[in-house]
Parts: sequence; C-alpha cells; structure tokens
Amino acid sequence: MSLIDALNWRYAVKKMNGQPVEQEKVDQIIQAALLAPTSSGLQPFRVVVVTNQELKEKIAPIAFGQSQIIDSSHLLIFAAQENYTEEGIDAIFDRMNSERGLPLNGTDAYKAQLKGMVLSRSAEENFNHAARQAYIGFGIAIAQAAVLKVDATPMEGFNGPDLDKLLGLDTKGLKSVTLLPLGNRDESADWLANLKKVRTPLNEFVIEFK
Amino acid sequence: MSLIDALNWRYAVKKMNGQPVEQEKVDQIIQAALLAPTSSGLQPFRVVVVTNQELKEKIAPIAFGQSQIIDSSHLLIFAAQENYTEEGIDAIFDRMNSERGLPLNGTDAYKAQLKGMVLSRSAEENFNHAARQAYIGFGIAIAQAAVLKVDATPMEGFNGPDLDKLLGLDTKGLKSVTLLPLGNRDESADWLANLKKVRTPLNEFVIEFK
Repeated sequence: MSLIDALNWRYAVKKMNGQPVEQEKVDQIIQAALLAPTSSGLQPFRVVVVTNQELKEKIAPIAFGQSQIIDSSHLLIFAAQENYTEEGIDAIFDRMNSERGLPLNGTDAYKAQLKGMVLSRSAEENFNHAARQAYIGFGIAIAQAAVLKVDATPMEGFNGPDLDKLLGLDTKGLKSVTLLPLGNRDESADWLANLKKVRTPLNEFVIEFK
Repeated sequence: MSLIDALNWRYAVKKMNGQPVEQEKVDQIIQAALLAPTSSGLQPFRVVVVTNQELKEKIAPIAFGQSQIIDSSHLLIFAAQENYTEEGIDAIFDRMNSERGLPLNGTDAYKAQLKGMVLSRSAEENFNHAARQAYIGFGIAIAQAAVLKVDATPMEGFNGPDLDKLLGLDTKGLKSVTLLPLGNRDESADWLANLKKVRTPLNEFVIEFK
C-alpha cells in the first residue's frame, strides 16, 4: 500500500476493540520515530511505551477519559526534553564521531557554534524547539502505523504535568507532548469510522511561486 | 521499498546537483502533507512551493547561503498560522459538515468548546500550537519524499521574518517554520553522503512500562 493510500485509510480512531497490535509492528513504528530527522541530530525526545493495563487505567482520567488509552494495546507517549544541556550535546557528538570513525574533536567548530546558539536560548524556547522535533517523529510514527495498517489516535488532549509526574518523566528532564495509542478500530462503535476525510482544498493549502 | 528502508536511505543532503524532481512526485509529497492529521482537523499551516529560480536566489542569503535552496528544483516552505480565528474555525467546521452531508449545526457543541479553549489562549501559544501541527505535516512529507527516493533537506536555519516579508506571508497571517528543498543528491560533492547514520540507542530512546 502506498503511503498516500495508507494516509487515506487512517483516521483518528475514536473507539478501539481491545485487540492487541503485534509487537513486531510496534517495533517498526518506534524504529520509524527513531530514524526521524531532528535539528543537528540532537533527538531531544523519547518514546514512552505503556503496555501495563493498570497504568493505562491511571492515565485515562489524565486524558479526559478517552477510551483509546485503555482499549489500545500499546500507548506511545512522545516526551520532549525540557531543555538542552552542554553535556547532552557533547554526548551526542561524541557518539556520532565515534560511530563514524572520526576524531572526537572533528566537529568541535560546529559544536561550539551550536552550543553558542542553543545554550543562550531560554529553557522555554529550547523546550518549544525540542517539542517540534518530537512532532517530526510523531508524524513519521503516524505514517509508519498507517502503512502497517495499525490504528492509532494522535492525541494532544491530556494534562501533561500530571502525566509526567505519574510516569516520573519530570525527574528525567522530559515533558510529554503527545499521545499515540495503538490498537484496532471498533468500526461498529466508532462514530468517525465511516465519515468522509475532509481536508483544505489543495489550491488553498498550497501557495506557489513559479 | 519499506518506510524503514526509505528512512535509512534518506539523509539531510548537503549538496544537490540541480537536476529536477518530477512534478508528479512533488505532488505526492504535498498530498502527504495535506493528509497529515492535525489537532481538531484545523490544518493551521500552508505549504509554499518555490520553483522560480530568481526567487530561490533571493531566499538563499536569508537561509545562511545554504546551496540546497538554489540547487533544489522545488523549495517547500512550511508556514504556520500566526493565530487561530473564530472565522477560520467556523469555515473549517462548515466545510467538514457540508462535505460529510451533516447539518451545519451538527458540531456546534464541540465547536463552542474548541473555540472556548483556543480563542482564550495567547497568540504566541496558538502560534506554537499551529507550528507543531505544521511539523506533523513536515515529518510526513519527509517520509513521503524518502519513499519516492526524492532527496530532501529539512532546514530550520533561516531568518523567518525576512522570508515571510519577501514572500508576503506576513500579510496572509502566516509565519514560515521550516524549509524542505527537494532535489537530487550530488554524492561526490556531499561530505555527509557516505557517513553512517547515527541515532540514539534504542534502549535509551524508549522508556517502557510493562
């Protein structure tokens, strides 16, 4: 199935049936998020995977009781770094140079320039920047789920601070930004299942300079 | 080619060779961005497509002279709405209900709740929210380009206000957030072409709650 066909097949499933998604498919969805490009390769986000049913039941009320939290088999949570740190940037460049067989100081000039820019920004600016990188991975994970015909519901409606506290993400310097429960649609109980997908007309969506 | 293989094939091309990308492929990349999910279906972003060479040459200095701006055949610019408006939300719900054959007032309760939330936020919060939605489309466009073996370079390094002024996006209530030049890699002149793709180890990237 082409990606376009997959994107037309997918929709934000409102009711899942509780049947599990194969772990192999979940692994590919996570791998796609891992491979997503990020600014300077900093990958300032993590993917939390919740399969524990009791924990999902605790998360549901933090997300306005949305049933997909509980009826999904794997709840993915995209969590962005609350800030960038000098040590974090060093670690990433060290790994990059090491895996590429380059001298560790090979990227010092670029790294110094990057640190000068990033570390002079406020924590809020950096979190917003990190969150955007998480959304690239989120988008690509949604695409990968669709290609594998795994149902998924992109969700922003939840109390981030409460969720971060419940999962201890706050102690890891992370803030959750989006949820992506993975499961299987329950078409007969889902009001959105058979409604037409509506998008902005192409001539309004695209602005051309020829 | 699977999406995972495509994501492994792609990289942030540093040098393009000036050869054009087929319009049919560009159309599919734009279509993928159009099909990307967004919060409440609001699609608060647009894709600007620049093929005019003179204009690309004016844009290059605004983007630190990065050569891919000029050597791409199609420069995509993802631009997010600077704010949400009541009229904009109404128009989207009217279209959605109309295309679905539902009464125009069928979603009034949901729409009122959404407006209450969105229109009470500051313009800055709403722009940040809109930008994140643009990044979902950006991620999915990157995935689509890779699947089609179209080279693309995700870019955040440019002066947004200058670009918005040059293209008149400011008068349309839009702010550019990312660039995605599309073209063909010039492997022999690209220092990054043959370097290993390095990512965070999976056990560090994923946090599991089983």
